[in-house]
Amino acid sequence: MAKKVLIVYAHQSSGSFNAAAKNAAVEVLTAQGCTVDVSDLYAMGFKATATAEDIKGEVKNAENFCYLEESKLAWEQGKLSADIMEEQSRLTEADLIIFQFPMYWFSVPAILKGWIDRVLTNGFAFSQEKRYSQGIFKDKKAMLSFTTGSLESMFSPTGINGDMNVTLWPLQNGILHYCGFQVLAPQIFWAPSSAVAEDRKSMLESWRTRLQSLLEEKPLSFISLDCFDDKAFQLKPEVHEKHASKEFGLTVGIHLNKPLPPHSQMKNGCGCCSELL
Amino acid sequence: MAKKVLIVYAHQSSGSFNAAAKNAAVEVLTAQGCTVDVSDLYAMGFKATATAEDIKGEVKNAENFCYLEESKLAWEQGKLSADIMEEQSRLTEADLIIFQFPMYWFSVPAILKGWIDRVLTNGFAFSQEKRYSQGIFKDKKAMLSFTTGSLESMFSPTGINGDMNVTLWPLQNGILHYCGFQVLAPQIFWAPSSAVAEDRKSMLESWRTRLQSLLEEKPLSFISLDCFDDKAFQLKPEVHEKHASKEFGLTVGIHLNKPLPPHSQMKNGCGCCSELL
Repeated sequence: MAKKVLIVYAHQSSGSFNAAAKNAAVEVLTAQGCTVDVSDLYAMGFKATATAEDIKGEVKNAENFCYLEESKLAWEQGKLSADIMEEQSRLTEADLIIFQFPMYWFSVPAILKGWIDRVLTNGFAFSQEKRYSQGIFKDKKAMLSFTTGSLESMFSPTGINGDMNVTLWPLQNGILHYCGFQVLAPQIFWAPSSAVAEDRKSMLESWRTRLQSLLEEKPLSFISLDCFDDKAFQLKPEVHEKHASKEFGLTVGIHLNKPLPPHSQMKNGCGCCSELL
Repeated sequence: MAKKVLIVYAHQSSGSFNAAAKNAAVEVLTAQGCTVDVSDLYAMGFKATATAEDIKGEVKNAENFCYLEESKLAWEQGKLSADIMEEQSRLTEADLIIFQFPMYWFSVPAILKGWIDRVLTNGFAFSQEKRYSQGIFKDKKAMLSFTTGSLESMFSPTGINGDMNVTLWPLQNGILHYCGFQVLAPQIFWAPSSAVAEDRKSMLESWRTRLQSLLEEKPLSFISLDCFDDKAFQLKPEVHEKHASKEFGLTVGIHLNKPLPPHSQMKNGCGCCSELL
Protein backbone atom coordinates (compact mmCIF):
# COMPACT_ATOMS: atom_id res chain seq x y z
CA MET A 1 0.00 0.00 0.00
CA ALA A 2 1.26 3.49 -0.82
CA LYS A 3 2.52 5.28 2.27
CA LYS A 4 1.87 8.82 3.43
CA VAL A 5 4.77 10.93 4.63
CA LEU A 6 4.72 14.24 6.49
CA ILE A 7 7.88 16.35 6.50
CA VAL A 8 7.93 18.95 9.27
CA TYR A 9 10.49 21.34 7.89
CA ALA A 10 12.13 24.21 9.78
CA HIS A 11 14.52 26.34 7.76
CA GLN A 12 14.13 29.97 6.74
CA SER A 13 15.65 29.68 3.29
CA SER A 14 14.83 27.73 0.15
CA GLY A 15 18.52 27.96 -0.81
CA SER A 16 19.73 26.10 2.28
CA PHE A 17 21.18 22.63 2.65
CA ASN A 18 18.14 21.76 4.79
CA ALA A 19 15.89 22.75 1.89
CA ALA A 20 17.90 20.51 -0.44
CA ALA A 21 17.58 17.61 2.04
CA LYS A 22 13.82 18.20 2.28
CA ASN A 23 13.49 18.40 -1.52
CA ALA A 24 15.44 15.16 -1.93
CA ALA A 25 13.02 13.43 0.45
CA VAL A 26 9.98 14.76 -1.40
CA GLU A 27 11.43 13.65 -4.74
CA VAL A 28 12.64 10.17 -3.85
CA LEU A 29 9.60 9.27 -1.74
CA THR A 30 7.14 10.61 -4.33
CA ALA A 31 8.91 8.61 -7.04
CA GLN A 32 8.27 5.51 -4.89
CA GLY A 33 4.55 6.23 -4.93
CA CYS A 34 4.35 7.83 -1.49
CA THR A 35 2.14 10.84 -0.89
CA VAL A 36 4.35 13.51 0.65
CA ASP A 37 3.01 16.48 2.59
CA VAL A 38 5.28 19.27 3.89
CA SER A 39 4.66 21.59 6.86
CA ASP A 40 7.05 24.44 6.02
CA LEU A 41 6.98 26.10 9.43
CA TYR A 42 8.72 29.42 8.66
CA ALA A 43 6.82 29.87 5.39
CA MET A 44 3.56 29.19 7.28
CA GLY A 45 4.55 31.73 9.95
CA PHE A 46 3.84 28.93 12.41
CA LYS A 47 3.08 30.19 15.93
CA ALA A 48 5.64 28.73 18.33
CA THR A 49 4.31 29.80 21.72
CA ALA A 50 1.81 27.82 23.80
CA THR A 51 -0.79 30.39 24.90
CA ALA A 52 -4.48 30.69 25.78
CA GLU A 53 -5.10 31.84 22.17
CA ASP A 54 -4.60 28.21 21.14
CA ILE A 55 -8.00 27.53 22.65
CA LYS A 56 -11.19 28.79 21.00
CA GLY A 57 -13.64 30.41 23.38
CA GLU A 58 -13.23 30.56 27.12
CA VAL A 59 -10.65 28.57 29.01
CA LYS A 60 -11.64 26.60 32.09
CA ASN A 61 -9.38 28.30 34.59
CA ALA A 62 -8.09 31.69 33.43
CA GLU A 63 -6.75 32.57 36.90
CA ASN A 64 -4.45 29.59 37.00
CA PHE A 65 -4.05 28.68 33.35
CA CYS A 66 -2.35 25.31 32.81
CA TYR A 67 -1.58 24.64 29.12
CA LEU A 68 -1.36 20.86 29.55
CA GLU A 69 -4.84 20.65 31.04
CA GLU A 70 -6.55 23.36 29.02
CA SER A 71 -5.27 22.07 25.68
CA LYS A 72 -6.37 18.52 26.59
CA LEU A 73 -9.86 19.78 27.31
CA ALA A 74 -9.92 21.89 24.14
CA TRP A 75 -8.83 18.86 22.08
CA GLU A 76 -11.64 16.77 23.58
CA GLN A 77 -14.16 19.49 22.79
CA GLY A 78 -12.84 20.32 19.31
CA LYS A 79 -11.83 23.80 20.49
CA LEU A 80 -8.14 23.86 19.55
CA SER A 81 -7.14 26.66 17.17
CA ALA A 82 -7.33 25.94 13.43
CA ASP A 83 -3.55 25.82 12.89
CA ILE A 84 -3.12 23.11 15.54
CA MET A 85 -6.05 21.05 14.24
CA GLU A 86 -4.68 21.25 10.71
CA GLU A 87 -1.28 19.91 11.83
CA GLN A 88 -2.93 17.18 13.91
CA SER A 89 -4.91 16.06 10.91
CA ARG A 90 -1.74 15.93 8.77
CA LEU A 91 -0.04 13.88 11.47
CA THR A 92 -3.01 11.51 11.77
CA GLU A 93 -2.85 10.83 8.02
CA ALA A 94 0.88 10.12 7.97
CA ASP A 95 2.65 6.76 8.24
CA LEU A 96 6.05 8.42 8.58
CA ILE A 97 7.02 11.85 9.92
CA ILE A 98 10.42 13.32 9.03
CA PHE A 99 11.59 16.32 11.05
CA GLN A 100 14.08 18.30 8.90
CA PHE A 101 15.97 21.10 10.68
CA PRO A 102 19.33 22.65 11.54
CA MET A 103 20.36 21.77 15.10
CA TYR A 104 20.19 24.93 17.25
CA TRP A 105 21.77 24.72 20.70
CA PHE A 106 21.91 20.91 20.94
CA SER A 107 18.20 20.70 20.09
CA VAL A 108 15.49 21.71 17.62
CA PRO A 109 14.91 25.37 16.65
CA ALA A 110 12.22 27.14 18.71
CA ILE A 111 9.71 27.11 15.83
CA LEU A 112 9.92 23.31 15.71
CA LYS A 113 9.78 23.04 19.50
CA GLY A 114 6.61 25.11 19.18
CA TRP A 115 5.14 22.55 16.77
CA ILE A 116 5.99 19.81 19.30
CA ASP A 117 4.60 21.75 22.30
CA ARG A 118 1.36 22.74 20.53
CA VAL A 119 0.53 19.87 18.13
CA LEU A 120 1.37 16.89 20.36
CA THR A 121 -1.54 17.69 22.66
CA ASN A 122 -2.29 15.74 25.83
CA GLY A 123 -5.00 13.26 24.80
CA PHE A 124 -4.28 13.49 21.07
CA ALA A 125 -0.63 12.36 21.23
CA PHE A 126 -0.34 10.65 24.62
CA SER A 127 -2.11 9.83 27.85
CA GLN A 128 -1.02 8.40 31.19
CA GLU A 129 -1.79 4.89 29.89
CA LYS A 130 -0.84 5.31 26.26
CA ARG A 131 2.80 6.23 25.99
CA TYR A 132 6.18 4.77 25.11
CA SER A 133 5.76 1.27 23.61
CA GLN A 134 1.99 1.54 24.23
CA GLY A 135 1.93 5.03 22.73
CA ILE A 136 -0.82 6.41 20.55
CA PHE A 137 1.38 6.58 17.43
CA LYS A 138 2.92 3.11 17.74
CA ASP A 139 1.87 2.22 14.20
CA LYS A 140 3.68 5.26 12.80
CA LYS A 141 7.36 5.92 12.20
CA ALA A 142 9.24 9.13 12.88
CA MET A 143 12.79 10.36 12.49
CA LEU A 144 15.07 13.35 12.90
CA SER A 145 17.03 14.59 9.89
CA PHE A 146 19.30 17.51 10.74
CA THR A 147 22.43 19.49 10.05
CA THR A 148 25.05 20.32 12.66
CA GLY A 149 27.59 23.12 12.92
CA SER A 150 30.16 20.81 14.55
CA LEU A 151 32.12 17.93 13.07
CA GLU A 152 31.20 14.35 13.96
CA SER A 153 34.36 13.83 16.04
CA MET A 154 33.35 16.71 18.35
CA PHE A 155 30.11 14.88 19.21
CA SER A 156 31.79 11.71 20.53
CA PRO A 157 32.37 10.30 24.06
CA THR A 158 35.84 11.94 23.99
CA GLY A 159 34.91 15.05 21.96
CA ILE A 160 34.26 18.52 23.28
CA ASN A 161 30.47 18.42 22.77
CA GLY A 162 30.13 14.93 24.21
CA ASP A 163 28.39 11.85 22.81
CA MET A 164 25.65 12.65 20.27
CA ASN A 165 23.69 9.68 21.64
CA VAL A 166 23.24 11.64 24.88
CA THR A 167 22.12 14.80 23.07
CA LEU A 168 19.57 12.80 21.06
CA TRP A 169 18.03 10.98 24.03
CA PRO A 170 15.63 13.73 25.22
CA LEU A 171 14.41 14.29 21.65
CA GLN A 172 14.11 10.67 20.50
CA ASN A 173 13.01 9.12 23.79
CA GLY A 174 11.28 12.07 25.44
CA ILE A 175 9.25 13.20 22.42
CA LEU A 176 9.15 10.62 19.61
CA HIS A 177 9.23 7.34 21.54
CA TYR A 178 7.08 8.90 24.30
CA CYS A 179 4.26 9.26 21.76
CA GLY A 180 4.84 5.68 20.64
CA PHE A 181 6.52 6.38 17.30
CA GLN A 182 8.87 3.74 15.95
CA VAL A 183 11.97 5.92 15.78
CA LEU A 184 14.14 5.47 12.69
CA ALA A 185 17.86 6.21 13.04
CA PRO A 186 18.56 9.93 12.68
CA GLN A 187 19.97 11.27 9.41
CA ILE A 188 22.80 13.53 10.54
CA PHE A 189 24.45 15.87 8.08
CA TRP A 190 27.70 16.75 9.83
CA ALA A 191 28.73 20.38 9.34
CA PRO A 192 27.66 20.83 5.70
CA SER A 193 28.43 24.56 5.95
CA SER A 194 32.12 23.74 6.60
CA ALA A 195 32.25 21.16 3.80
CA VAL A 196 33.31 21.66 0.19
CA ALA A 197 30.61 21.52 -2.48
CA GLU A 198 31.55 18.01 -3.51
CA ASP A 199 31.16 16.67 0.03
CA ARG A 200 27.82 18.41 0.44
CA LYS A 201 26.70 16.77 -2.78
CA SER A 202 27.80 13.36 -1.59
CA MET A 203 25.96 13.85 1.74
CA LEU A 204 22.77 14.45 -0.24
CA GLU A 205 23.49 11.46 -2.46
CA SER A 206 23.75 9.10 0.50
CA TRP A 207 20.51 10.55 1.89
CA ARG A 208 18.83 9.81 -1.47
CA THR A 209 20.18 6.28 -1.34
CA ARG A 210 18.91 5.79 2.19
CA LEU A 211 15.49 7.18 1.26
CA GLN A 212 15.04 4.37 -1.30
CA SER A 213 14.55 1.83 1.50
CA LEU A 214 13.82 4.10 4.45
CA LEU A 215 10.35 2.67 5.01
CA GLU A 216 11.76 -0.84 5.38
CA GLU A 217 14.32 0.07 8.04
CA LYS A 218 14.21 -1.43 11.52
CA PRO A 219 13.67 1.23 14.18
CA LEU A 220 15.96 2.07 17.11
CA SER A 221 15.61 -0.08 20.22
CA PHE A 222 13.78 1.18 23.30
CA ILE A 223 12.51 -0.69 26.32
CA SER A 224 8.99 -2.04 26.34
CA LEU A 225 6.56 -0.51 28.83
CA ASP A 226 6.00 -4.07 30.16
CA CYS A 227 9.49 -3.95 31.67
CA PHE A 228 8.35 -1.33 34.20
CA ASP A 229 6.00 -1.75 37.10
CA ASP A 230 2.83 0.21 36.57
CA LYS A 231 2.84 2.16 39.83
CA ALA A 232 6.26 3.75 40.30
CA PHE A 233 7.33 3.11 36.68
CA GLN A 234 10.57 1.47 37.83
CA LEU A 235 12.28 -1.32 35.94
CA LYS A 236 10.91 -4.64 37.23
CA PRO A 237 13.39 -6.53 39.44
CA GLU A 238 13.35 -9.55 37.08
CA VAL A 239 14.36 -7.36 34.12
CA HIS A 240 17.07 -5.68 36.16
CA GLU A 241 18.36 -9.06 37.31
CA LYS A 242 18.34 -10.54 33.83
CA HIS A 243 20.52 -7.66 32.71
CA ALA A 244 22.84 -7.69 35.74
CA SER A 245 25.75 -9.46 34.06
CA LYS A 246 25.56 -7.41 30.87
CA GLU A 247 28.32 -4.99 29.96
CA PHE A 248 26.11 -2.08 28.90
CA GLY A 249 23.03 -0.30 30.19
CA LEU A 250 19.70 -0.84 28.46
CA THR A 251 19.44 2.59 26.83
CA VAL A 252 21.13 5.98 27.18
CA GLY A 253 18.72 7.10 29.90
CA ILE A 254 17.97 3.77 31.53
CA HIS A 255 21.65 2.99 31.87
CA LEU A 256 21.55 1.12 35.21
CA ASN A 257 24.85 2.84 36.13
CA LYS A 258 26.63 0.85 33.42
CA PRO A 259 28.40 2.21 30.32
CA LEU A 260 25.94 3.46 27.70
CA PRO A 261 25.09 1.01 24.91
CA PRO A 262 27.17 2.26 21.96
CA HIS A 263 25.36 4.13 19.16
CA SER A 264 21.95 3.13 20.50
CA GLN A 265 20.38 6.46 19.48
CA MET A 266 22.18 6.54 16.14
CA LYS A 267 21.97 3.04 14.65
CA ASN A 268 19.17 0.54 14.45
CA GLY A 269 19.49 -3.09 15.38
CA CYS A 270 21.45 -2.46 18.57
CA GLY A 271 21.45 -6.03 19.84
CA CYS A 272 22.28 -5.48 23.47
CA CYS A 273 18.73 -5.29 24.74
CA SER A 274 16.75 -6.84 21.89
CA GLU A 275 15.82 -9.85 23.99
CA LEU A 276 13.84 -7.55 26.27
CA LEU A 277 11.84 -5.85 23.56
CA MET B 1 29.10 44.20 46.23
CA ALA B 2 25.38 43.97 45.48
CA LYS B 3 24.68 41.48 42.71
CA LYS B 4 22.38 41.79 39.73
CA VAL B 5 20.06 38.93 38.90
CA LEU B 6 18.03 38.33 35.75
CA ILE B 7 15.13 35.89 35.90
CA VAL B 8 14.03 34.65 32.49
CA TYR B 9 10.55 33.46 33.29
CA ALA B 10 8.32 31.38 31.03
CA HIS B 11 4.86 30.64 32.39
CA GLN B 12 1.52 31.89 31.10
CA SER B 13 -0.17 32.35 34.46
CA SER B 14 0.51 34.50 37.50
CA GLY B 15 -1.36 31.92 39.59
CA SER B 16 1.02 29.08 38.72
CA PHE B 17 3.59 27.29 40.86
CA ASN B 18 6.25 28.66 38.49
CA ALA B 19 5.04 32.18 39.24
CA ALA B 20 5.31 31.47 42.96
CA ALA B 21 8.86 30.15 42.49
CA LYS B 22 9.77 33.26 40.50
CA ASN B 23 8.20 35.55 43.10
CA ALA B 24 10.08 33.78 45.89
CA ALA B 25 13.36 34.40 44.04
CA VAL B 26 12.56 38.07 43.51
CA GLU B 27 11.64 38.49 47.18
CA VAL B 28 14.52 36.64 48.82
CA LEU B 29 17.20 38.01 46.49
CA THR B 30 15.89 41.59 46.75
CA ALA B 31 15.88 41.30 50.54
CA GLN B 32 19.57 40.39 50.30
CA GLY B 33 20.28 43.63 48.45
CA CYS B 34 20.37 42.15 44.94
CA THR B 35 18.85 44.03 42.02
CA VAL B 36 16.43 41.64 40.36
CA ASP B 37 15.17 42.06 36.81
CA VAL B 38 12.52 39.75 35.28
CA SER B 39 11.98 38.96 31.60
CA ASP B 40 8.40 37.68 31.69
CA LEU B 41 8.38 36.10 28.22
CA TYR B 42 4.65 35.39 27.76
CA ALA B 43 3.63 38.76 29.21
CA MET B 44 6.11 40.44 26.84
CA GLY B 45 4.69 38.46 23.90
CA PHE B 46 8.29 37.49 23.25
CA LYS B 47 8.89 36.42 19.63
CA ALA B 48 10.21 32.86 19.63
CA THR B 49 11.13 32.30 16.00
CA ALA B 50 14.51 33.12 14.46
CA THR B 51 13.70 35.00 11.26
CA ALA B 52 15.10 37.70 8.94
CA GLU B 53 12.90 40.22 10.80
CA ASP B 54 15.38 39.98 13.67
CA ILE B 55 17.76 42.00 11.53
CA LYS B 56 17.15 45.69 10.82
CA GLY B 57 17.64 46.68 7.21
CA GLU B 58 18.82 44.38 4.45
CA VAL B 59 20.34 41.00 5.13
CA LYS B 60 23.60 40.01 3.46
CA ASN B 61 22.36 36.96 1.61
CA ALA B 62 18.59 36.84 1.21
CA GLU B 63 18.76 33.97 -1.32
CA ASN B 64 20.52 31.66 1.10
CA PHE B 65 19.68 33.16 4.49
CA CYS B 66 21.73 31.68 7.32
CA TYR B 67 20.54 32.87 10.75
CA LEU B 68 23.83 32.07 12.52
CA GLU B 69 25.84 34.22 10.10
CA GLU B 70 23.32 37.00 9.52
CA SER B 71 22.63 37.53 13.22
CA LYS B 72 26.38 37.63 13.96
CA LEU B 73 26.84 40.34 11.34
CA ALA B 74 23.81 42.26 12.60
CA TRP B 75 25.14 42.10 16.17
CA GLU B 76 28.51 43.47 15.01
CA GLN B 77 26.79 46.30 13.14
CA GLY B 78 24.22 47.09 15.85
CA LYS B 79 21.40 45.98 13.57
CA LEU B 80 19.66 43.36 15.72
CA SER B 81 15.99 44.05 16.45
CA ALA B 82 15.17 46.10 19.55
CA ASP B 83 13.71 43.20 21.54
CA ILE B 84 16.91 41.14 21.14
CA MET B 85 19.17 44.09 22.03
CA GLU B 86 17.09 44.80 25.12
CA GLU B 87 17.50 41.21 26.36
CA GLN B 88 21.21 41.22 25.56
CA SER B 89 21.66 44.36 27.60
CA ARG B 90 19.78 42.79 30.55
CA LEU B 91 22.00 39.72 30.29
CA THR B 92 25.18 41.84 30.11
CA GLU B 93 24.19 43.59 33.34
CA ALA B 94 23.46 40.39 35.26
CA ASP B 95 25.78 38.40 37.51
CA LEU B 96 23.32 35.51 37.76
CA ILE B 97 20.61 34.34 35.34
CA ILE B 98 17.81 32.08 36.61
CA PHE B 99 15.67 30.35 34.00
CA GLN B 100 12.27 29.58 35.56
CA PHE B 101 9.95 27.34 33.52
CA PRO B 102 7.80 24.21 33.42
CA MET B 103 9.61 21.38 31.62
CA TYR B 104 7.87 20.71 28.28
CA TRP B 105 8.86 17.55 26.43
CA PHE B 106 12.14 16.91 28.31
CA SER B 107 13.28 20.48 27.56
CA VAL B 108 12.38 24.17 27.81
CA PRO B 109 9.10 25.55 26.38
CA ALA B 110 9.39 26.92 22.82
CA ILE B 111 9.13 30.55 24.00
CA LEU B 112 12.23 30.05 26.17
CA LYS B 113 14.03 28.15 23.40
CA GLY B 114 13.27 31.21 21.28
CA TRP B 115 14.97 33.45 23.85
CA ILE B 116 18.01 31.13 23.71
CA ASP B 117 18.07 30.93 19.90
CA ARG B 118 17.66 34.69 19.40
CA VAL B 119 19.41 36.36 22.37
CA LEU B 120 22.54 34.18 22.59
CA THR B 121 23.82 35.51 19.27
CA ASN B 122 27.00 34.29 17.63
CA GLY B 123 29.64 36.87 18.60
CA PHE B 124 27.68 38.23 21.58
CA ALA B 125 27.43 34.95 23.52
CA PHE B 126 30.13 32.74 21.97
CA SER B 127 32.75 32.47 19.27
CA GLN B 128 34.90 29.64 17.93
CA GLU B 129 37.63 30.62 20.44
CA LYS B 130 35.46 31.76 23.32
CA ARG B 131 33.30 28.92 24.51
CA TYR B 132 32.99 26.37 27.30
CA SER B 133 35.50 27.16 30.10
CA GLN B 134 36.85 30.05 27.97
CA GLY B 135 33.32 31.24 27.24
CA ILE B 136 32.26 34.86 27.06
CA PHE B 137 30.08 34.66 30.19
CA LYS B 138 32.59 32.83 32.39
CA ASP B 139 32.28 35.49 35.11
CA LYS B 140 28.52 35.00 35.30
CA LYS B 141 26.44 32.27 36.88
CA ALA B 142 23.33 30.64 35.44
CA MET B 143 20.87 27.97 36.53
CA LEU B 144 17.71 26.14 35.56
CA SER B 145 14.75 26.18 37.94
CA PHE B 146 11.83 24.12 36.70
CA THR B 147 8.78 22.04 37.44
CA THR B 148 8.21 18.52 36.09
CA GLY B 149 5.04 16.55 35.44
CA SER B 150 6.75 13.30 36.46
CA LEU B 151 7.90 12.10 39.87
CA GLU B 152 11.61 12.05 40.70
CA SER B 153 11.78 8.24 40.68
CA MET B 154 10.64 8.18 37.04
CA PHE B 155 13.66 10.28 36.04
CA SER B 156 16.26 7.84 37.39
CA PRO B 157 18.67 5.35 35.72
CA THR B 158 16.06 2.63 36.31
CA GLY B 159 12.96 4.80 35.82
CA ILE B 160 10.77 5.00 32.75
CA ASN B 161 11.97 8.47 31.67
CA GLY B 162 15.63 7.65 32.28
CA ASP B 163 18.27 9.52 34.25
CA MET B 164 17.54 13.26 34.63
CA ASN B 165 21.30 13.89 34.37
CA VAL B 166 21.09 12.78 30.73
CA THR B 167 18.10 15.00 29.98
CA LEU B 168 19.87 18.01 31.52
CA TRP B 169 23.14 17.56 29.62
CA PRO B 170 22.13 19.25 26.33
CA LEU B 171 20.67 22.21 28.23
CA GLN B 172 23.35 22.68 30.86
CA ASN B 173 26.38 21.75 28.77
CA GLY B 174 25.19 22.65 25.28
CA ILE B 175 23.72 26.05 26.14
CA LEU B 176 24.80 27.34 29.57
CA HIS B 177 28.33 25.95 29.87
CA TYR B 178 28.85 26.46 26.12
CA CYS B 179 28.54 30.22 26.70
CA GLY B 180 30.91 29.96 29.65
CA PHE B 181 28.39 30.35 32.46
CA GLN B 182 29.24 28.80 35.81
CA VAL B 183 26.24 26.48 36.05
CA LEU B 184 24.61 26.22 39.47
CA ALA B 185 22.81 22.97 40.32
CA PRO B 186 19.28 22.95 38.93
CA GLN B 187 16.33 23.60 41.22
CA ILE B 188 13.88 20.86 40.34
CA PHE B 189 10.33 20.99 41.62
CA TRP B 190 9.15 17.41 41.15
CA ALA B 191 5.52 17.18 40.03
CA PRO B 192 4.05 20.02 42.10
CA SER B 193 0.73 19.63 40.26
CA SER B 194 0.38 16.10 41.70
CA ALA B 195 1.40 17.19 45.20
CA VAL B 196 -0.85 18.23 48.07
CA ALA B 197 -0.85 21.91 49.06
CA GLU B 198 1.37 21.29 52.06
CA ASP B 199 4.05 19.63 49.95
CA ARG B 200 3.93 22.41 47.39
CA LYS B 201 4.42 24.87 50.21
CA SER B 202 7.39 22.98 51.56
CA MET B 203 8.97 22.84 48.05
CA LEU B 204 8.79 26.62 47.95
CA GLU B 205 10.17 26.87 51.48
CA SER B 206 13.26 24.87 50.58
CA TRP B 207 13.75 27.02 47.49
CA ARG B 208 13.60 30.12 49.72
CA THR B 209 16.17 28.56 52.02
CA ARG B 210 18.45 27.72 49.12
CA LEU B 211 18.10 31.25 47.72
CA GLN B 212 19.61 32.66 50.92
CA SER B 213 23.05 31.37 49.96
CA LEU B 214 22.58 30.68 46.26
CA LEU B 215 25.22 33.16 45.19
CA GLU B 216 27.86 31.43 47.33
CA GLU B 217 27.24 27.96 45.87
CA LYS B 218 29.95 26.09 44.00
CA PRO B 219 28.95 25.42 40.39
CA LEU B 220 28.62 22.03 38.66
CA SER B 221 31.83 20.47 37.30
CA PHE B 222 32.63 20.54 33.61
CA ILE B 223 35.88 19.83 31.79
CA SER B 224 38.27 22.67 31.08
CA LEU B 225 38.83 23.58 27.42
CA ASP B 226 42.55 23.00 28.05
CA CYS B 227 41.84 19.26 28.28
CA PHE B 228 41.03 19.16 24.55
CA ASP B 229 43.39 19.59 21.63
CA ASP B 230 42.62 22.74 19.71
CA LYS B 231 42.27 21.23 16.25
CA ALA B 232 39.94 18.24 16.44
CA PHE B 233 38.63 19.16 19.93
CA GLN B 234 39.35 15.67 21.23
CA LEU B 235 40.35 14.92 24.81
CA LYS B 236 44.16 15.08 25.02
CA PRO B 237 45.79 11.61 25.36
CA GLU B 238 47.39 12.57 28.70
CA VAL B 239 44.00 13.50 30.18
CA HIS B 240 42.45 10.32 28.87
CA GLU B 241 45.32 8.28 30.29
CA LYS B 242 45.19 9.96 33.67
CA HIS B 243 41.55 9.00 33.89
CA ALA B 244 41.97 5.44 32.56
CA SER B 245 41.76 3.68 35.91
CA LYS B 246 38.79 5.71 37.18
CA GLU B 247 35.42 4.10 37.68
CA PHE B 248 33.31 6.83 36.07
CA GLY B 249 33.41 8.95 32.92
CA LEU B 250 34.32 12.63 33.17
CA THR B 251 30.86 14.04 32.48
CA VAL B 252 27.54 12.78 31.12
CA GLY B 253 28.53 13.50 27.52
CA ILE B 254 32.28 12.93 27.75
CA HIS B 255 31.79 9.57 29.38
CA LEU B 256 34.74 7.71 27.80
CA ASN B 257 32.49 4.63 27.55
CA LYS B 258 32.45 4.32 31.35
CA PRO B 259 29.45 4.60 33.68
CA LEU B 260 28.20 8.18 33.99
CA PRO B 261 29.45 10.11 37.04
CA PRO B 262 26.47 10.03 39.44
CA HIS B 263 24.40 13.22 39.83
CA SER B 264 26.98 15.29 37.96
CA GLN B 265 24.31 17.50 36.35
CA MET B 266 22.27 17.73 39.55
CA LYS B 267 24.71 18.33 42.41
CA ASN B 268 27.73 20.56 42.75
CA GLY B 269 31.08 19.42 44.02
CA CYS B 270 31.15 16.15 42.11
CA GLY B 271 34.66 15.10 43.08
CA CYS B 272 35.38 12.53 40.42
CA CYS B 273 36.98 14.88 37.94
CA SER B 274 37.85 17.88 40.08
CA GLU B 275 41.58 17.25 39.70
CA LEU B 276 41.22 17.98 35.98
CA LEU B 277 39.41 21.26 36.32
